[in-house]
Amino acid sequence: MKSILTPLGPKADKDTVRRHNLSLVLRAVRDEGEHGEATRAGVAARVGLTRAAVSSLVEQLMAGGFLTESGKTFSGQAGRPGTALKVARTGPAGLGVEINIDYVSVCVVDLAGAGRIRRTEHLDNRGAPADEALARAARIAARTLDAASEQELRPVGATLALPGLISGGSVRQAPNLGWNEVPAQELFADALAALRPGRPALPVASENEANLAALAELWFGDLDDVRSFLYLSGEIGVGGALVLNGELLRGAHGFAGEIGHVVVDPAGPACRCGSRGCLEQYAGQSALLRAAGIEGPGGAPGMAELERRAAAGNPRAVDAIGGAGRMLGRVLSGAVNLVDPDAVVLGGIYRGLMPWLSPPAAEELSGRVVSGLWSPGGGRLRASSVAGDAARGAAALVVQDVLDDPVAYAEPVGAAGA
Amino acid sequence: MKSILTPLGPKADKDTVRRHNLSLVLRAVRDEGEHGEATRAGVAARVGLTRAAVSSLVEQLMAGGFLTESGKTFSGQAGRPGTALKVARTGPAGLGVEINIDYVSVCVVDLAGAGRIRRTEHLDNRGAPADEALARAARIAARTLDAASEQELRPVGATLALPGLISGGSVRQAPNLGWNEVPAQELFADALAALRPGRPALPVASENEANLAALAELWFGDLDDVRSFLYLSGEIGVGGALVLNGELLRGAHGFAGEIGHVVVDPAGPACRCGSRGCLEQYAGQSALLRAAGIEGPGGAPGMAELERRAAAGNPRAVDAIGGAGRMLGRVLSGAVNLVDPDAVVLGGIYRGLMPWLSPPAAEELSGRVVSGLWSPGGGRLRASSVAGDAARGAAALVVQDVLDDPVAYAEPVGAAGA
Repeated sequence: MKSILTPLGPKADKDTVRRHNLSLVLRAVRDEGEHGEATRAGVAARVGLTRAAVSSLVEQLMAGGFLTESGKTFSGQAGRPGTALKVARTGPAGLGVEINIDYVSVCVVDLAGAGRIRRTEHLDNRGAPADEALARAARIAARTLDAASEQELRPVGATLALPGLISGGSVRQAPNLGWNEVPAQELFADALAALRPGRPALPVASENEANLAALAELWFGDLDDVRSFLYLSGEIGVGGALVLNGELLRGAHGFAGEIGHVVVDPAGPACRCGSRGCLEQYAGQSALLRAAGIEGPGGAPGMAELERRAAAGNPRAVDAIGGAGRMLGRVLSGAVNLVDPDAVVLGGIYRGLMPWLSPPAAEELSGRVVSGLWSPGGGRLRASSVAGDAARGAAALVVQDVLDDPVAYAEPVGAAGA
Repeated sequence: MKSILTPLGPKADKDTVRRHNLSLVLRAVRDEGEHGEATRAGVAARVGLTRAAVSSLVEQLMAGGFLTESGKTFSGQAGRPGTALKVARTGPAGLGVEINIDYVSVCVVDLAGAGRIRRTEHLDNRGAPADEALARAARIAARTLDAASEQELRPVGATLALPGLISGGSVRQAPNLGWNEVPAQELFADALAALRPGRPALPVASENEANLAALAELWFGDLDDVRSFLYLSGEIGVGGALVLNGELLRGAHGFAGEIGHVVVDPAGPACRCGSRGCLEQYAGQSALLRAAGIEGPGGAPGMAELERRAAAGNPRAVDAIGGAGRMLGRVLSGAVNLVDPDAVVLGGIYRGLMPWLSPPAAEELSGRVVSGLWSPGGGRLRASSVAGDAARGAAALVVQDVLDDPVAYAEPVGAAGA
């Protein structure tokens, strides 16, 4: 198929407007589709273009494989039936690759934002050099890409989700992985390219995992009207991210959100970051399991055991989680005083621990936030949705690029049959 | 004078464009004037409008009293001399009224951003009911307005700068003033109107004092390339503000920046906010003076005595400031880990204490900020400029409104002679 969405060239201004309008229409179909059926007339009303202009743009998006049509609809229209439009469930997609301390999770998200394929492998990334860990993740990604291909999904880019400070495609520091100045983006892209000889290289980006989990929460979670929130991702480390007015705060150098290294006790235990008494030393996974007296390799089985014991009323388990909740609440109250968000969202290991973690954290917030808006039970301290996770956010970030400028991601000329 | 800047009415779109362009040109003259001389040609090049359009807009701005012309200039122009344009030093201006714990400071800022009139009175606002304190501030403001009138300055609005949580024109809570749910804006406006019978009421807004001091620093300070910073305003309380990418972060409810109530020690001394062990209890003015063994009323004389003793090498004074610096550094490192700003700016009482305060604070930041970007001597921890203060920021906020839409602030028809 020769794509009619090939960029035009010289007439830059007209082309820019057309590309912008294609993006508008594609997003409108996607958004309308979430609440009902999208029609050309409905889209025209939503974006403020004429019905004729929208029809033309829809034709182009259908030819490019971004939209499909499905039967007649009578919804909302007087008289003539319209045709329901849908965002394509095949074609351009995003690949997300979360490389965390003790697991790798890979996800493919389609244009509609749905998670279509997921592969998660529990393994210890601390035991291997960075290049080996990244090569292993590339192998999982390559198998996922094969599976995507079978579903006629075509990931046009990948985002790595990493638990550390990321800038310029490199991991500046990931204390819990033991990585320093690792050019993760390049290493991963090379490893993936080597596994897929003869195929076009996949563009790779990278981002902090908590930032991506927060975006997933923003895009797919049950946040209602919440537009500003602090997200905490409890894993072996404690990651954090700030979303303000619907935008991720990356910070002046891309290092915002490191709430795991806020000091709880200046004389506390040494942290892998080089400081002492960081929140992570009180509310991270290892600290929780140690305080609860749970031996062994930790990870998902360890957390399951902790939840089981707490649910059974084991005092040591309940106290361990409560203590972590109190420390979390103390640090969170400082962060809330500083940025005044609508809500705090607890993700990762904290989701399952909420019954025991939340009350002491809420009590600290209630007593220490000066605005008086954080009384317990006010719904401001909440667990993350099941939907939100870093790999899905990573994949969805690629899809955002496609929605912003579909022309740039049209199927290459001659890549598929006529 | 009948202003030709009267809003047009029906032709809303054309009018909107014209108002926008008037704002563009006014701002361009103001900005060019900071670096040299502004000419019509220079302004046209800067804003991307034709020379003819700019000339017409300049005429309207001159007729409205926003711009003046001053002699010929040859700067930068080949051939014909141009005429240098200047923002008017008379006419529309802003009034800022800072009501702090132990002083009231009132300031008039002209269109060019210069502080033109300043009145500061040291007095104790804790001793009086809120309405009396506001009436007293209104009296100082009224005298300042008379002085402005003598200089042919016409403040078109006032902003109150208050040390507390402000929303909807009310002080929700100002622990150090002992104010709760005080409708400060209305009380001040009424008191001021009563002092100026027969004159049009001045629109009054209100904002947290640290937020306004941070804006003053952004607009008038020596920040170089810094666009994101955390501002700390040390007074009797410790106020704070966050500027991210050149924008003040007000927070979801207008309560962001309350760094003075971040917990340093959960079992520490009770704070007036209702919590315990807040930063204010370690690095506020009272805590500093107490730790240094300085008795008496405190305030400006107390701080001068503290500086004098520290400069003389008095160990108790030096230790008191050093201890506060360490606590500040600890809290700041958490805030920096969370929002990743370019810099931290210390204002208020901290400016004069920097020689003793800064080293321990910098040491904490260096050891506790995970990005490794905060080594001592890196220039990220700095004193505020002399220029920056809340009253000037408050007045400048009014001027920003004038610059945004000069038409709305043109001299009322018939208010002045032809």
